[in-house]
Amino acid sequence: MTVVMKGAETAARMKESIAEEAARLRRRGIEPKLSIVRVGARPDDLFYERGALARFKGLGIAAQVYEFPEDVDKETFFSEFTKIDASAEVHGILLFRPLPKRLDEDAVRRSINPLKDVDGMNPVNAARVFAGEPDGFAPCTPAAVVEMLAGVELAGKSVSIVGRSMVVGRPLSMLLLKRDATVTICHTKTRNTAEICRGADVVVAAAGKAKMLSPAFVSEKSIVLDVGINVDENGNLCGDVDYEAVAPRVAMISPVPGGVGAVTTSVLASHVLRAAFQLTQ
Amino acid sequence: MTVVMKGAETAARMKESIAEEAARLRRRGIEPKLSIVRVGARPDDLFYERGALARFKGLGIAAQVYEFPEDVDKETFFSEFTKIDASAEVHGILLFRPLPKRLDEDAVRRSINPLKDVDGMNPVNAARVFAGEPDGFAPCTPAAVVEMLAGVELAGKSVSIVGRSMVVGRPLSMLLLKRDATVTICHTKTRNTAEICRGADVVVAAAGKAKMLSPAFVSEKSIVLDVGINVDENGNLCGDVDYEAVAPRVAMISPVPGGVGAVTTSVLASHVLRAAFQLTQ
Repeated sequence: MTVVMKGAETAARMKESIAEEAARLRRRGIEPKLSIVRVGARPDDLFYERGALARFKGLGIAAQVYEFPEDVDKETFFSEFTKIDASAEVHGILLFRPLPKRLDEDAVRRSINPLKDVDGMNPVNAARVFAGEPDGFAPCTPAAVVEMLAGVELAGKSVSIVGRSMVVGRPLSMLLLKRDATVTICHTKTRNTAEICRGADVVVAAAGKAKMLSPAFVSEKSIVLDVGINVDENGNLCGDVDYEAVAPRVAMISPVPGGVGAVTTSVLASHVLRAAFQLTQ
Repeated sequence: MTVVMKGAETAARMKESIAEEAARLRRRGIEPKLSIVRVGARPDDLFYERGALARFKGLGIAAQVYEFPEDVDKETFFSEFTKIDASAEVHGILLFRPLPKRLDEDAVRRSINPLKDVDGMNPVNAARVFAGEPDGFAPCTPAAVVEMLAGVELAGKSVSIVGRSMVVGRPLSMLLLKRDATVTICHTKTRNTAEICRGADVVVAAAGKAKMLSPAFVSEKSIVLDVGINVDENGNLCGDVDYEAVAPRVAMISPVPGGVGAVTTSVLASHVLRAAFQLTQ
């Protein structure tokens, strides 16, 4: 029987320690707080935002949304972002990206206080993840994959990651290397991705391509994590894995929705608490 | 017949464009200059330093050595290092590492002007390499491996890197990913390193372990790059590859000495010139 790796189970496991840490902070008079910065109102961003706000409410962590109009000018946005970043009451900032080109996202990413950079967008944190250093923040999605794999022994296991983005593939490769996995990064130019994945103990689909991972990519021993969030031809949410075809043929698999995506806001919460501890020590 | 990949050939190919760029800078009144900063006098450092000075002389690039006693105190060293870093005449700095613990190498690495950081030790440059950005400096050794492979089509090829250090394995994985190779990082916890390497088109040995790469790690199609610099039981220089046993069984191989190591100072020179251009634009 295939084990379905439900995000809700990982989130439930994380909830206890998160609530404990939040309570510890409050006993010290500190109210942990996340600021969410959004330009415009993309449906995906709003969906994620609603999920984050609900999660944070349930965990007793404050969260405040700063919405800017799509046509905000660069000076105004940068000045407001800097104020939010400088506020002593704010311990973590989540910025929805990509920003409109005019707003110079690179400069914003470099400007955020690395200690408040709970979604790992500042190069300072990227460098820490790259080096395998214990401090520093990884982006929430690859960190959520690692949380999903908390019960799986990874040392010496082979992991094949399909996708090489800076938000998932690359940081995930370094997080799993830190867990002593043997990591292969596949991408659009890889010739035999299916074969490489089929031979791996763990396969992570992070290609951003609906249902691209077919049964040819897996074996009965495979542990499959699906990071994709796509809409299929019928308008339904689906992952990068052809779930119906793949699920019966593998050992473990995370669904979409209800898999990795259900853990990212828990990771975000745990990052905000870590930030609050580090900032108030 | 096995093709022996001689570092001298790659260095000779690089020499022409390096000399041209140096001449272009001098026509603009700029004398490109490297500062070498050394604490103590480890034989390995002195060996590399002599090679770099000879190379730079042949290329018409200035190089100056700053030697500090092994017991230099932290304040003196940091203050002197900062002066060298701030000098408008200096375009690149090579710092021999590791530094004595007392000198807080992390702080020194973070303090260097990223534009002068020609051996890629500042996390700012690590983050750029990680993200695959075109600017920024990679450490010279992995960059030398890429130069050695300049004539090899890497897109879609499988590369197995043995070793995951921040000076070779990790940055090299990102440099080769940028060349569209499919990269696997093997390390001490990897179970079947020999099998993984044998199946790869290109194998890079960067484990820091004398002659660990035996014929079991290669096939007749393998292209083998040896980054190791070790001393064998007879006191002779040797790489991470058991060269005598491996060389006859592969398509291409770089020897030690005379392979990758002979290219690093050319990469260093090209980095100094790029730094000089960027700093004087």
